[in-house]
Amino acid sequence: MDTVKYVLSEDQMPTSWYNIAADLPVPLPPPLHPGTGQPIGPADLAPLFPMELIKQEVSTERMIEIPEEVQKVYRQWRPTPLYRARRLEQELGTPAKIYYKYEGVSPAGSHKPNTAIPQAYYSKQEGVKRLATETGAGQWGSSLALAGALFGIEVVVYMVKVSYGQKPYRRALMETFGAKVLASPSNTTNAGRQILAEHPDSTGSLGIAISEAVEVAAMDPDTKYALGSVLNHVLLHQTVIGQEAMTQLEMAGDYPDIIVGCTGGGSNFSGIAFPFIGAKMRGERDVRVVAVEPAACPSLTRGKYAYDFGDTGHLTPLVKMHTLGSTFIPPGIHAGGLRYHGMAPLVSHLLDLGQIEASAVQQLDAFAAGVQFARAEGILPAPEANHAVAGAIAEALACKESGESKTILFNLCGHGHFDMSAYTDYMAGKLQNYEYPAEEIAMALAGLPSVG
Amino acid sequence: MDTVKYVLSEDQMPTSWYNIAADLPVPLPPPLHPGTGQPIGPADLAPLFPMELIKQEVSTERMIEIPEEVQKVYRQWRPTPLYRARRLEQELGTPAKIYYKYEGVSPAGSHKPNTAIPQAYYSKQEGVKRLATETGAGQWGSSLALAGALFGIEVVVYMVKVSYGQKPYRRALMETFGAKVLASPSNTTNAGRQILAEHPDSTGSLGIAISEAVEVAAMDPDTKYALGSVLNHVLLHQTVIGQEAMTQLEMAGDYPDIIVGCTGGGSNFSGIAFPFIGAKMRGERDVRVVAVEPAACPSLTRGKYAYDFGDTGHLTPLVKMHTLGSTFIPPGIHAGGLRYHGMAPLVSHLLDLGQIEASAVQQLDAFAAGVQFARAEGILPAPEANHAVAGAIAEALACKESGESKTILFNLCGHGHFDMSAYTDYMAGKLQNYEYPAEEIAMALAGLPSVG
Repeated sequence: MDTVKYVLSEDQMPTSWYNIAADLPVPLPPPLHPGTGQPIGPADLAPLFPMELIKQEVSTERMIEIPEEVQKVYRQWRPTPLYRARRLEQELGTPAKIYYKYEGVSPAGSHKPNTAIPQAYYSKQEGVKRLATETGAGQWGSSLALAGALFGIEVVVYMVKVSYGQKPYRRALMETFGAKVLASPSNTTNAGRQILAEHPDSTGSLGIAISEAVEVAAMDPDTKYALGSVLNHVLLHQTVIGQEAMTQLEMAGDYPDIIVGCTGGGSNFSGIAFPFIGAKMRGERDVRVVAVEPAACPSLTRGKYAYDFGDTGHLTPLVKMHTLGSTFIPPGIHAGGLRYHGMAPLVSHLLDLGQIEASAVQQLDAFAAGVQFARAEGILPAPEANHAVAGAIAEALACKESGESKTILFNLCGHGHFDMSAYTDYMAGKLQNYEYPAEEIAMALAGLPSVG
Repeated sequence: MDTVKYVLSEDQMPTSWYNIAADLPVPLPPPLHPGTGQPIGPADLAPLFPMELIKQEVSTERMIEIPEEVQKVYRQWRPTPLYRARRLEQELGTPAKIYYKYEGVSPAGSHKPNTAIPQAYYSKQEGVKRLATETGAGQWGSSLALAGALFGIEVVVYMVKVSYGQKPYRRALMETFGAKVLASPSNTTNAGRQILAEHPDSTGSLGIAISEAVEVAAMDPDTKYALGSVLNHVLLHQTVIGQEAMTQLEMAGDYPDIIVGCTGGGSNFSGIAFPFIGAKMRGERDVRVVAVEPAACPSLTRGKYAYDFGDTGHLTPLVKMHTLGSTFIPPGIHAGGLRYHGMAPLVSHLLDLGQIEASAVQQLDAFAAGVQFARAEGILPAPEANHAVAGAIAEALACKESGESKTILFNLCGHGHFDMSAYTDYMAGKLQNYEYPAEEIAMALAGLPSVG
């Protein structure tokens, strides 16, 4: 009973990204201008993003071609393996079949380069000199730093302060790739200075870091902004994951009954799930899809589906999403990549349409699942990925209970080699669960803008 | 000009290890019993190793079959990719072609599982309950911990104290896989206690850690000893690397003029080079082979080819090797995996026969090469692997000088994701070169045993 790997040849690699907007039964609510409350157009986004990415953001074409230059870089680590977790199945004693797609083989150790590479490519094509971005756990920042090194673009990263402290080695990776890394909130932007004035001890949040990076891009014509999750074009780029997985499952003669992904901003989840949800919405094949989020930052399970700002400083357009309010600052849990107050509009919309489900996992349960997975399968997951592992194990144990042999697919979005301090803390009993009090969530939600 | 990857299908994976002993023009000098000065036999090694590994240690068969159970685990990450480093070539402006085999895709991030897996497998087959071992940088220890988790064997690791401090996250990885990790010298063995009595501040060495692990295995019938380098059977297991590379270079229509590997104990170097050296010794095809070692631990370039102990506590047999003396304790350089006083007997023998060359690289030059490689190729090498990168770059620049378009192959034996503190120190200007004074080497060599 050993792990089985399904390998694709490079000519089986997707040559287009899958755009779920083409298959939505109800269109995505548009982003709104915070001043006018009216839908914004491409021109409003032009100061922040390269035009090709703006086109992808609003496109409704089903397949969008992956430029050959991007495919060339993808091929350094793609197609990524799909594994059947036979040793884990055996240990759980489940009749379920568990498959996982492993994105940790990328040079940055996660799925993030899938979008960092095209973002840097299009920026270079359009003459951009510098990209500003935010990062939580550092997976996104190190991926953009990598992409910047490969395409010759400067990268400046606002890193959420709690991660800057917890994950100094992610920072070192970014710096080795040549990027400049600042702890956010910083005193280099108005947004950062304002937060520091009010909360000098702020541990930061993705919302704050986004404000800082957006501000830098808005002020400098040579600088654009790059986001690692949430936006439609980012989710689009990640669909290579699910497309590959679909082909690999065909090789295995299988199709998922259940797909599990962890959600922070929603990009790795979308990457694995969208191609399958598209097939479901086109009436081709049914599938249950479960988004697993940390209980400490429960935007899908306890947030509100409403128009909100993407950042704390209120510099971004308003987008309709499941949100805890842009002032919500989650506790410093170790899955830093999942500490975002909102959820990708597309993922939020799909939940609203009933196309997906959501559940929340506590930090200690996530780490217990990660350690169990590591000992069975030999791969140590990132703390973010542990949430998907926990979700998949829960489904497998439900199958054990019911005696059903369902096929479960989950995305192992990254390895935890940069997150060993979190495992050290877990094994030393220093981590804790976190249940956000209802009043605090209500208070954060009370501040939502009254638009849309 | 992008990196090109050569991928093998699983059915192109080697099904046998290549045993270079079959092709040696002069047999390897045998290990000697330290008391009698006479060659030792399999029975002398039986307390320490499973019998199947002892047979491999002394075998002269050219090909030794890889058990199916081992192949199954290998397939989790093997065959590993071979890359053409076009971006690096372009940046160097060299007419040389640079290929690298990348072993960092294994779940432990290095080549070490290639031997950890069969060692755990054979131990399990022979009813061993516990494996004791030493580790320097932690690459070996985490690989054996992984193998122990997969085959259900307890693992206890004596980790060189300087690495235990520098690389706490490697330790956490071992512990996550369920292994017990002790800083060496420890007070759990006679060998450790003796060192601590003489040198209470000892930062440890591989030689000391080996003594401790060997002592534990010798005292307990349920415990065997596992070594991550140096021994013939360990080097044998690594030859999957070079065999795969040979097939991949055939796909590329190429053959190396020069092979470069970094050397500490010699196992990754042997893995990439032995199949090619074998072809050379059989008169099939010529190749230059360069072993690159750290200037701070120069066993090949400044040591003596003589019988010596493999450990500091003098518990092992005497083996003929290039050695700095078993009392030599190298400075705490960051390439902890290369801090061994001796060199594998097979590698030493090949240098003595003129089949390979050796050169030494300073720490700062190694890191400079690693950063240049990371920015060009997007993969951050382990500090050990940086020595191979530096060696390959030196050869490529020599080609630029001479205008020759040679084919260079090197082994990128592991990623540096666990070694970011070293990169942080390097970028902060905290690392230094180290030139070992001639008198100190002479003094350490003066203590060599007078056998053989």
